[in-house]
Amino acid sequence: MRVGVLTGGGDCPGLNAVIRAVVRRGVRDHGFEFLGFRDGWRGPLEGLTMELGIEQCRGILPRGGTILGSSRTNPFSIDGGVEQIKDNLASAGVDALVAIGGEDTLGVATKLAELGVDVVGVPKTIDNDLSGTDFTFGFDTAVNIATEAIDRLHTTAESHHRVLVVEVMGRHAGWIALHAGIAGGASAVLIPEQPFDIEALCRHVETRFETSYAPIIVVSEGAVPVEGGDMTLVSGEKDAFGHVRLGGIGDRIASEIEARTGKESRAVVLGHVQRGGTPTAFDRWLATRFGLHAADAVAAGDFGTMMALRGTNIERVPLSEGTAELKLVSPEEYAEAAVFFG
Amino acid sequence: MRVGVLTGGGDCPGLNAVIRAVVRRGVRDHGFEFLGFRDGWRGPLEGLTMELGIEQCRGILPRGGTILGSSRTNPFSIDGGVEQIKDNLASAGVDALVAIGGEDTLGVATKLAELGVDVVGVPKTIDNDLSGTDFTFGFDTAVNIATEAIDRLHTTAESHHRVLVVEVMGRHAGWIALHAGIAGGASAVLIPEQPFDIEALCRHVETRFETSYAPIIVVSEGAVPVEGGDMTLVSGEKDAFGHVRLGGIGDRIASEIEARTGKESRAVVLGHVQRGGTPTAFDRWLATRFGLHAADAVAAGDFGTMMALRGTNIERVPLSEGTAELKLVSPEEYAEAAVFFG
Amino acid sequence: MRVGVLTGGGDCPGLNAVIRAVVRRGVRDHGFEFLGFRDGWRGPLEGLTMELGIEQCRGILPRGGTILGSSRTNPFSIDGGVEQIKDNLASAGVDALVAIGGEDTLGVATKLAELGVDVVGVPKTIDNDLSGTDFTFGFDTAVNIATEAIDRLHTTAESHHRVLVVEVMGRHAGWIALHAGIAGGASAVLIPEQPFDIEALCRHVETRFETSYAPIIVVSEGAVPVEGGDMTLVSGEKDAFGHVRLGGIGDRIASEIEARTGKESRAVVLGHVQRGGTPTAFDRWLATRFGLHAADAVAAGDFGTMMALRGTNIERVPLSEGTAELKLVSPEEYAEAAVFFG
Amino acid sequence: MRVGVLTGGGDCPGLNAVIRAVVRRGVRDHGFEFLGFRDGWRGPLEGLTMELGIEQCRGILPRGGTILGSSRTNPFSIDGGVEQIKDNLASAGVDALVAIGGEDTLGVATKLAELGVDVVGVPKTIDNDLSGTDFTFGFDTAVNIATEAIDRLHTTAESHHRVLVVEVMGRHAGWIALHAGIAGGASAVLIPEQPFDIEALCRHVETRFETSYAPIIVVSEGAVPVEGGDMTLVSGEKDAFGHVRLGGIGDRIASEIEARTGKESRAVVLGHVQRGGTPTAFDRWLATRFGLHAADAVAAGDFGTMMALRGTNIERVPLSEGTAELKLVSPEEYAEAAVFFG
Repeated sequence: MRVGVLTGGGDCPGLNAVIRAVVRRGVRDHGFEFLGFRDGWRGPLEGLTMELGIEQCRGILPRGGTILGSSRTNPFSIDGGVEQIKDNLASAGVDALVAIGGEDTLGVATKLAELGVDVVGVPKTIDNDLSGTDFTFGFDTAVNIATEAIDRLHTTAESHHRVLVVEVMGRHAGWIALHAGIAGGASAVLIPEQPFDIEALCRHVETRFETSYAPIIVVSEGAVPVEGGDMTLVSGEKDAFGHVRLGGIGDRIASEIEARTGKESRAVVLGHVQRGGTPTAFDRWLATRFGLHAADAVAAGDFGTMMALRGTNIERVPLSEGTAELKLVSPEEYAEAAVFFG
Repeated sequence: MRVGVLTGGGDCPGLNAVIRAVVRRGVRDHGFEFLGFRDGWRGPLEGLTMELGIEQCRGILPRGGTILGSSRTNPFSIDGGVEQIKDNLASAGVDALVAIGGEDTLGVATKLAELGVDVVGVPKTIDNDLSGTDFTFGFDTAVNIATEAIDRLHTTAESHHRVLVVEVMGRHAGWIALHAGIAGGASAVLIPEQPFDIEALCRHVETRFETSYAPIIVVSEGAVPVEGGDMTLVSGEKDAFGHVRLGGIGDRIASEIEARTGKESRAVVLGHVQRGGTPTAFDRWLATRFGLHAADAVAAGDFGTMMALRGTNIERVPLSEGTAELKLVSPEEYAEAAVFFG
Repeated sequence: MRVGVLTGGGDCPGLNAVIRAVVRRGVRDHGFEFLGFRDGWRGPLEGLTMELGIEQCRGILPRGGTILGSSRTNPFSIDGGVEQIKDNLASAGVDALVAIGGEDTLGVATKLAELGVDVVGVPKTIDNDLSGTDFTFGFDTAVNIATEAIDRLHTTAESHHRVLVVEVMGRHAGWIALHAGIAGGASAVLIPEQPFDIEALCRHVETRFETSYAPIIVVSEGAVPVEGGDMTLVSGEKDAFGHVRLGGIGDRIASEIEARTGKESRAVVLGHVQRGGTPTAFDRWLATRFGLHAADAVAAGDFGTMMALRGTNIERVPLSEGTAELKLVSPEEYAEAAVFFG
Repeated sequence: MRVGVLTGGGDCPGLNAVIRAVVRRGVRDHGFEFLGFRDGWRGPLEGLTMELGIEQCRGILPRGGTILGSSRTNPFSIDGGVEQIKDNLASAGVDALVAIGGEDTLGVATKLAELGVDVVGVPKTIDNDLSGTDFTFGFDTAVNIATEAIDRLHTTAESHHRVLVVEVMGRHAGWIALHAGIAGGASAVLIPEQPFDIEALCRHVETRFETSYAPIIVVSEGAVPVEGGDMTLVSGEKDAFGHVRLGGIGDRIASEIEARTGKESRAVVLGHVQRGGTPTAFDRWLATRFGLHAADAVAAGDFGTMMALRGTNIERVPLSEGTAELKLVSPEEYAEAAVFFG
């Protein structure tokens, strides 16, 4: 059997660990041959391939990124894209595909599966917002990086009497902010699921200065103010180039806090540092297990499924289930640790 | 309500995070007062106490160790120990206890609960071998430390053609070895649950040298040779002090491999480094949640229970269940990643 | 003898290590008593003091920040400020001061020394731009944090074909950018001392994409374009709040590169993460030695001096020398590693 | 010009960084061709070579180990070894050699230089005991790893009332122990240069328990007791295999302390973890600069020299000078931080 492998979407620590495990199990225990498709769905679409065997996977376990490259190409938004993929798979003699990716990549996989392509999915997102699985790999790495940053910022907040706003990844779901906020001992966590009230936040800042040292506020990049919440106090100063120097939500909040409370406030935007580099042990373990089980699913002919962590077990769930809806932070989960906040 | 808190057994990253969360939730949401008992069960036994409130818990979240101190004192092996504890709790006006510890500490808690002491347990072991919970805090930190060590040893194995044997913690259960072995890309993992055959291991070493670079072998401190397995080839050389220079199982295995295969072999024994220092984000999150839920269990009067992670939920299980038996690595779990080994 | 200690200016890993070493040596070997002044020069100015002895310094060696607090208060810009300081020192019975800080803090110390205050200085800046000393503590920590971030970004650049611009600290001097750029394997380093040509940089980006993977560009926050260099191609898009989303120089450069080359470009601004948290071993060693020698200088009555690292020796140099001019990256030092850049 | 490169001796973080810098500067700025010799002096001796150019050096900067492999082969202890090397260099068309290694490797280089081989040396030892240079690369990494381990052990010492003995590398010189001991806040440091008195050490342990928490003692692997110092109190218990369970000096000291003071004592032997894995920023910077300057020395025909760090400059010193004597910790350097010890 000849199996194609591809990785799609944004960078995520653990991709290489999945690839290595799929290949190792496939070659050793199932007698598969492998073909690597480059740059996500662009690979099968444009016939971009690379040799993929045990040799190519040597030493990649601890490395971030993906040896297969990635892209956000969507074959369904390209005329004849699906036919092209089917043709390319056929002419390369590829019998089955392992697609490793997030909502978009697995969404394509889901539709291709419905159109008869034999595909198995491995869920990937540092945001941890894919339903059907307890955790996705990459998330633990991102949370640790954010937590280490918060650890470092505590000493500055403490010694220098400054409000520090840490913007972390999470466009739709607040998992990274919630976990890093709890682990880092933040005094407020703002997530997309719970619009924030800038006035209440500023009151918290003032109370905090009275009772303890300066607060650290963790905010998801997708956090939004409550409707009608006035966030326009700061009009933005122009810099030397004539441009207004205001960035994303972290910068906005820091500016508002400084304007409203008079307390010096700084934002730190962790950005892409959260999604690159070597994975944590947890992510390597999870990614490796996903890869092993994905190869087994191919061997079992159990297509149209994706791997999922449930407790400590890896299970197969329908691809459609994993991508049906985003897994958001529930009000109960947000409230659980509220005693540390506000 | 006045609640006592104690920590028992070996060091484990996350103990302080539990204490902080219990106190914070207890004071803020349930109106508890707290009393700290020092040095495990020695505290209530000998009346060793310390003040414990939100102030004492400031800044302890990222710190290893325990502000309460610890010991392995067992009141049941001391004449009149149990009565003494009951008397001391009564005279200190303590209504309920939160006991944070492993098999031994919770074993005492289980028996005390049966004798009418109102106690709630929080499971703690870096070995991850307590049944009833998916994971215990401290384990993820230990696995990450071991994995980072293995990462470092790879370059030496690769460049200097040496067999490296890494001895990790795990007297009865091989969880740390298994997870760190998978995460670190070891080429063999030896655990207490699966006696090893030194001859087969040496054949693996020789094969490995032919096909790849020098192997890294991860071994639990409690690993044992198969019955009849000859591990006495090395008689031990005397050092300058006239003592035989042989340590634990890691050193033994390295010596045997070198004697049998002629390949230079070195053991690294990670030891106590695995159980000290700052916890990972996962362990801080898990420990914090255990603490929050333990305070809630006290408030609910749900005594004789311990906190357990099931999937992503914290549940209460009977104390007796959590300590009834060790959670060992099953043959299936050991076999899952065998494709990377041997 | 009664000795006051204060820390001024921005946060810098190693401040607590200096305090601990000054106090330890002073108490044990010279019989000093100590008084802590809080929040930089505000302490002696407003009489803000705290107890400072061996007990207060226990456990602070690995901690970032400063137990004394800090500020940017300058007594020379306050009417009667100098007299107030002299009065407060006299009434507190303080015979000598150890001032730990950067250009501003030591500038004040220099002038006070000329006015008869017995003061010894310890140089502090993560920017490493104080003349008279080979290195300052805090710099090595900042460089390591930046290097680890660059390590992580490499995998994203490599797998996802993106230009990554990393903005590091350094308003006047490019030391952090230069060292982290060399250590992190950046393909371009832009520093304040060498105005950059955005056109040449974009040509470099395009060449790089042809021959290797996407480039990583490290830029000091104080880097500037060459005179006449057109950096206004990007007019700035408005965000949801009606504000232009453009931050500092890192964001500007990323935007220009994307606009000119069509290559997706992202900026990461490391910010305050570089100056908080636990110091590296080098910084703890250097800070500790500075502290030990500062106490010796006080004991020797060698006032008006600051500690300096020369090779592996700690020497005393005149305070005026250390603050006379900024230590900038010379053209030769910038050129040394140019073979990796451009 | 055709230049050979080899790496000899034990593993050391930064070797790959040197290789990359030599090659990059040599190819780009001097028009050299390169040939890699494998496994130290065994390479030129047995004609073991590998291709070496910019391509082979891509991505190796942050990796520990050496892509060239290493060995401890000494051609001077092999009949006709030197002639063989000269023949192999000639037949491979190699005009000059860059030898990267420690005392032994550079000792061979020194003698070969005297015999007319055009060789330039780069000093390498994690022990930092090569004279002629302020620091060697690898040392800073080793010290940081040891310091992080000590940081972790503090919490165990503090919470669990145990003496912890940390054995670090350093057979002849105590640099790693001294630096890590200062940076980690050890309460005693034992180095080869200063024989220790076990009785005095035990008195220190007892005093320490009275005034503070349990002590951490850092000991070089080459530390020795004072002459006549009785270290034979512990006779060694036999383990399950009939072997006495006693390892190196760390274990010996822990056993003696426990036997003499009754305080539970544990040894942690860091071993090879100290010499593998990714280098710190300082070591990458130093290794890179050594490499750049070594290529320049070859271009300048300045053979028989080795690179040396003096302050912040890289200088060329005669090979014979660098290997003439070991750089030991002087009594003054040992005494400098004694206020923290004993």
